[in-house]
Amino acid sequence: MLNFDYQNKTRIVFGKDTHKQIGSLIKPFTSKVLLHYGSGSIKKNGIYDDVIRSLKEQSIEFIELGGVKPNPRLSLIHEGIDLCRKEKIGFILAVGGGSVIDSAKAIAMGVPYDGDVWDFFAAGKHPDTVLPVATVLTIPATGSESSIRSVISDEKTQRKLGYGDEKIRPVVSVINPEIYFSLPDFQIACGVCDMMSHIMERYFTNTTHTDLIDGLSESTMKTIMKNGLILKRDHTNYDAWAEVAFSGTLAHNGFLNLGREQDWACHAMEHEMSAIYDVAHAAGLTVVTPAWMKYVYQTNLPMFVQFAVNVMGVEGSFRDQEWIALEGIRRLEDFYSRMEMPLSMKEIDIDSENFELMAKKATGFAFGKENKIGGLKKLTWEDVLAIYQLADR
Amino acid sequence: MLNFDYQNKTRIVFGKDTHKQIGSLIKPFTSKVLLHYGSGSIKKNGIYDDVIRSLKEQSIEFIELGGVKPNPRLSLIHEGIDLCRKEKIGFILAVGGGSVIDSAKAIAMGVPYDGDVWDFFAAGKHPDTVLPVATVLTIPATGSESSIRSVISDEKTQRKLGYGDEKIRPVVSVINPEIYFSLPDFQIACGVCDMMSHIMERYFTNTTHTDLIDGLSESTMKTIMKNGLILKRDHTNYDAWAEVAFSGTLAHNGFLNLGREQDWACHAMEHEMSAIYDVAHAAGLTVVTPAWMKYVYQTNLPMFVQFAVNVMGVEGSFRDQEWIALEGIRRLEDFYSRMEMPLSMKEIDIDSENFELMAKKATGFAFGKENKIGGLKKLTWEDVLAIYQLADR
Repeated sequence: MLNFDYQNKTRIVFGKDTHKQIGSLIKPFTSKVLLHYGSGSIKKNGIYDDVIRSLKEQSIEFIELGGVKPNPRLSLIHEGIDLCRKEKIGFILAVGGGSVIDSAKAIAMGVPYDGDVWDFFAAGKHPDTVLPVATVLTIPATGSESSIRSVISDEKTQRKLGYGDEKIRPVVSVINPEIYFSLPDFQIACGVCDMMSHIMERYFTNTTHTDLIDGLSESTMKTIMKNGLILKRDHTNYDAWAEVAFSGTLAHNGFLNLGREQDWACHAMEHEMSAIYDVAHAAGLTVVTPAWMKYVYQTNLPMFVQFAVNVMGVEGSFRDQEWIALEGIRRLEDFYSRMEMPLSMKEIDIDSENFELMAKKATGFAFGKENKIGGLKKLTWEDVLAIYQLADR
Repeated sequence: MLNFDYQNKTRIVFGKDTHKQIGSLIKPFTSKVLLHYGSGSIKKNGIYDDVIRSLKEQSIEFIELGGVKPNPRLSLIHEGIDLCRKEKIGFILAVGGGSVIDSAKAIAMGVPYDGDVWDFFAAGKHPDTVLPVATVLTIPATGSESSIRSVISDEKTQRKLGYGDEKIRPVVSVINPEIYFSLPDFQIACGVCDMMSHIMERYFTNTTHTDLIDGLSESTMKTIMKNGLILKRDHTNYDAWAEVAFSGTLAHNGFLNLGREQDWACHAMEHEMSAIYDVAHAAGLTVVTPAWMKYVYQTNLPMFVQFAVNVMGVEGSFRDQEWIALEGIRRLEDFYSRMEMPLSMKEIDIDSENFELMAKKATGFAFGKENKIGGLKKLTWEDVLAIYQLADR
């Protein structure tokens, strides 16, 4: 186990009706907020009205900025920063899924900063101070409600980049499983598969002696799969939503990587796909992850055997460790299929035209760097190209 | 799953040499501390010197108060409160195990309070404000390094009482597994079994639909048992200590009870034993817990079957659910035996003389209340008496 330093300041308020408390939860921090949201689905399902009512009850003034899209855009973030400065707003309330929350975090970083907020994502800068962010989570998926991460896209340069900082962990996040009953099938599947990836990116490493974190990760993955499949046929199952939603928070709050290295090659590879093509992040992940696994599993065969046995329920007493490992990967593909997620580049309409470009961007090679990506196996752009090609079936 | 509200402010700094950073870790909070510790073992193993050096490097002034004993005494806590007031100290640094940390928390509550600190434990009072506490953990066991709890004893009245409050969660705790290499056999076993109890008190309830927390709890218990047995024969195994120590923190930081009811009858029953007799808390627990299990398992047979199968490795396909549940309890007893912990009242020199008195105190009956204890099965004093008698073998 490696040394670590961990603190998670996010207060999680979880359960039925909890979003109606948002006003009183943020009142200790502020009396004026930027209310940030997406395409307006919260106005259809009543969440918007509940939040507004709760803010008004606490006499919290709010200025609205909607319109966040998946892969949140830098241009709207600039708009939010300007709005906060003009209106002298010191607190961002995100009501939405991961894109809205990531956008809110970027605005929170940008407001007190003299330069362009893109500097934090692209130029290695770190903010001295950020505005506090609270969230009402409307789509369990990215874990952004309790994570240090924000991923945004510059639509002009087709670059999608992430940044991580303790300072942008939300101060409070509300998770009410009832809110998720109206989510469409594909969004449920995407959320579930995104969570799985957040754990797998931390789980498949070469770090040893992490019995505790291995076990916690395995339990969480099993919970996500079991309840994800329940949700696939029953969108209004409160208990299944509760399991999935809280698992999603744990999957990405930085706890399941304590004491270990991490990988994150699949996320890097996927970001280049969804930066160029109009593909959902999770769909890119379900395409690229099994291909990555097949390419790297021999680097740490015991870890893939452990995954197969402890997570995928493969009988572990076979002598052929390689068969067990590959059967684990096959069962992950089966799970993705049952969730109706894509497994190949063809299914998401990506042809091989840009594979080399994406591979060079993913590894930084395109920007004059000789970086390799991934913790389990260090991948060059040629490796990444080979993985894209493996997924091109 | 029940609604919940969770936040854990404790920063955990974990790993080799980390205790040498204690000065810089607490410098942002203070420049003068009460340095609180136990019988002086930290002076023999070099921890004291490392901590002093780190404080001096950061120009942090310190006033010492050693002498904390197991089941920390109210009289020393009063002394600490007086000392802090006299010396105008606003921060408590606990270097020790659970008793030292619990004592530090009580001092932290008492200093800003006009009345007697015992009010918080015995009279239902709550502190408006408390001093911040940091810890260097020298014995992994109680989880107090990241918990909201403090348990202290009033030696005059032979009462041992606990209090819980978010305000007394330490602000930073240092966990260095190397520090634990010199712990004696019995203390290792006590720590390991105490952690197990902290999870079992949360695990055995009637709450349903907690797949995630059930699984996390089961993983943590398996990690503790596996690595506890390694430590039993190899006191200087860094990796096993790392697993056990971090499991101990997770076991009692309030995470593994999220969304569920809790039980805590065994702790209540044990507290009355160690309040009267000179018995280690964990030894009391390993005596009373299997007896409690045998008395209550039929209340929620499926939960005891789940424990037997998922934690104790009992083959789950037998038709006889009762046999599986009882086999799980037997295996827990086997584990305690392998850790050389007691299983009967006789082994810890407690005779039946005070059973009725202890049962009436544990349930509050002795103090004019008709309280029942326990979340899984509500126990009257007669039930508790029967459990003590079951353990009297």
